[in-house]
Amino acid sequence: MPVFPTLAIVGLGLMGGSLALALKEKNTAQKIIGITRTRATLDAALQRGAIDMASDSLDAAREADIIVLAAPVRTILQHISNLKEIARDGALVLDMGSTKRAIVNAMNQLPERLLAVGGHPMCGKEVAGFEAAEAALYQNKMFVLTPTERSTHNALHIARTLAETIGSRVIELDAARHDEIVAAVSHLPYIVASNLAATVDEFARTDKVVWKIAASGFRDTSRLAASDVQMMLDILLTNSENVADLMRAYSRRFGELADLIYDQDEETLRELLEGAAQVRRELNKE
Amino acid sequence: MPVFPTLAIVGLGLMGGSLALALKEKNTAQKIIGITRTRATLDAALQRGAIDMASDSLDAAREADIIVLAAPVRTILQHISNLKEIARDGALVLDMGSTKRAIVNAMNQLPERLLAVGGHPMCGKEVAGFEAAEAALYQNKMFVLTPTERSTHNALHIARTLAETIGSRVIELDAARHDEIVAAVSHLPYIVASNLAATVDEFARTDKVVWKIAASGFRDTSRLAASDVQMMLDILLTNSENVADLMRAYSRRFGELADLIYDQDEETLRELLEGAAQVRRELNKE
Repeated sequence: MPVFPTLAIVGLGLMGGSLALALKEKNTAQKIIGITRTRATLDAALQRGAIDMASDSLDAAREADIIVLAAPVRTILQHISNLKEIARDGALVLDMGSTKRAIVNAMNQLPERLLAVGGHPMCGKEVAGFEAAEAALYQNKMFVLTPTERSTHNALHIARTLAETIGSRVIELDAARHDEIVAAVSHLPYIVASNLAATVDEFARTDKVVWKIAASGFRDTSRLAASDVQMMLDILLTNSENVADLMRAYSRRFGELADLIYDQDEETLRELLEGAAQVRRELNKE
Repeated sequence: MPVFPTLAIVGLGLMGGSLALALKEKNTAQKIIGITRTRATLDAALQRGAIDMASDSLDAAREADIIVLAAPVRTILQHISNLKEIARDGALVLDMGSTKRAIVNAMNQLPERLLAVGGHPMCGKEVAGFEAAEAALYQNKMFVLTPTERSTHNALHIARTLAETIGSRVIELDAARHDEIVAAVSHLPYIVASNLAATVDEFARTDKVVWKIAASGFRDTSRLAASDVQMMLDILLTNSENVADLMRAYSRRFGELADLIYDQDEETLRELLEGAAQVRRELNKE
């Protein structure tokens, strides 16, 4: 098991908190500095033994060899800019933000004395905050690494080792490709779920029995609607073109289905629904 | 615990099979006749002790006091029509179809010598068939009963007792209201999930890594897409007006969200997404 030197984790929500707990469980960091503005979170993290030192200021990252940014995307962008002055020579900046192009661009602007690798663990949940954090969060989950102009072989090796230490499976993707893919498998599903919850809520205003009847099907399909809105806004607004493209494709198909149902065109409908069913059943086999 | 006389269950898939298993577990039926065309299913049901007698013909329902129809909606409609000649005097016809207007209309056409109550247990799954059946399926689930012109007080009492015996909570709704509500909480979510699976599949044709990255968010949101297509076609085509109405409402909202994302209108977007998040979080509290 590798031992990492001093780590600073900036942001102790679900992702940052779980990273701290996972590293502590494996006992693989010499020292973990937890940084967040909320005093109560720092206290909770100290009490659970997730961190060794607590600070409410990014300045505390000055002594860290590895700085992990775990916050909504636009907050990460601010941190990267502030780290230009703060981070020590040769420090590695790693992030866990949900979109990667804007972050990799910002990392490319870091001084050459710093290292930087973009990261995105695919293990979001619709609950947020340190209280939801758990050491097992990253276990068997995909962890995307996106190289930057500040990614030496050594930097990528350290980032990969960190991700594997907490149980993740690493895949390297370039930032643009990452953002296209997550627009499809993560951001579009969120929009779809949120819009479903809103549509049914509007309908339910005239008939409260709706909520009594709503079963597991509705609950699962709408689950992502409960996601942290600030996090999702940062995601959508830093990936708006890809998301808009996917939404257009979704909308066009949705309109086709509506026409087929209205026209009672059973055969075409069967073909489309059967196709989608096959796709989804394949995923159940994995 | 009440004891029911001879029951015929027509259709031994997830719903009919689970009903047979639940009644056997509680030991509350004198005799259960299982009726389905598939010999292998009859054999499996006999072997698991779910039924006492097996038949591939609806004629076997002739000696039953209670006949439960557990099949896709349009198959149920055929069975109801055929039962006019087959069912004995005073027999109670109960169904577990997913839409209720067409079925209640058909039940209203039954001869006056028969009793009939529409039923819909809210416990669908995206898996089908007798092999997925389990005695606990109905436990703590809502079971909608829809009265018909053949529903005496006694008929409703028997139907309610049956539903409660297998652990369900009963709610009486008129058929038209039922169909409106399930269009919102069940049929719309299915379309939304199916369309998501199809959209992402189209995108994935140019980049297979998509399926590697797809995490629990995509899986949950698209889960219903794997539902039995024949069952869903029967549902959509016997509830097409309600479904089309809800789809129009969904589509309009979806278009608004797309515009807001494209225009980067953060404040309005925040308001809408926060509203949907609140709605969905409320459901988590229950």
